[in-house]
Amino acid sequence: MHKSRLAGFIIDCQSDDLQACGRFWGAALGMQARELPSDEADRYQRLVDPHIDLHMEVQTVDHPSRVHLDIETDDIEAEVTRLEKLGATRVAKVHTWVVMQAPTGHRFCVVRAASKNFDSEAHVWT
Amino acid sequence: MHKSRLAGFIIDCQSDDLQACGRFWGAALGMQARELPSDEADRYQRLVDPHIDLHMEVQTVDHPSRVHLDIETDDIEAEVTRLEKLGATRVAKVHTWVVMQAPTGHRFCVVRAASKNFDSEAHVWT
Repeated sequence: MHKSRLAGFIIDCQSDDLQACGRFWGAALGMQARELPSDEADRYQRLVDPHIDLHMEVQTVDHPSRVHLDIETDDIEAEVTRLEKLGATRVAKVHTWVVMQAPTGHRFCVVRAASKNFDSEAHVWT
Repeated sequence: MHKSRLAGFIIDCQSDDLQACGRFWGAALGMQARELPSDEADRYQRLVDPHIDLHMEVQTVDHPSRVHLDIETDDIEAEVTRLEKLGATRVAKVHTWVVMQAPTGHRFCVVRAASKNFDSEAHVWT
């Protein structure tokens, strides 16, 4: 038995100007673009809105810009296997997460559970 | 004075099999893929999760698959003008909404306000 849920959306920006990307998307969405501490600060900014539970981030990337979603889980291997049975494929393991490709062509990530309501709101797969 | 907020995310799928797309994303995210009435039923399915306020849909499209976000507003022309001042550009007017392109390269839509918490949660632009 393991659990998973939609964690949120990452706005991948093909740019080396994280400040400009965070400024645009923060202003466009009326959210606060918040800098992250330590070694994440040069690639990621969080987008914070008190009314939205989902995790949202702006990220600078080398590949073409896109939006991708993250699925969070308490068991990455079990969740990746579940998604493979639905037709998704593994693309890469990066640090603690796994990049997958949906049968619809979208890239998405399976990440470690981190949201505060994960235990109560995640779906249980048996 | 007008208002806007993030309405949600649309999973654009380059496919002519809406049922298969809705089935995959519903199962992957643990959401109910719900068919829509009337003339929308052949291109859109809603993804419903009681814990997520944002609007989510699966849509079949002709262009390459991607995820796009919608901004909802009570004044589309004022919102498009506000976003142009931030650096976005108009791409097309489609039915009641406007497709725009962000300076980061992402396509997104400005749509008529429809969420139940719009009045209390949208950002006021003066």
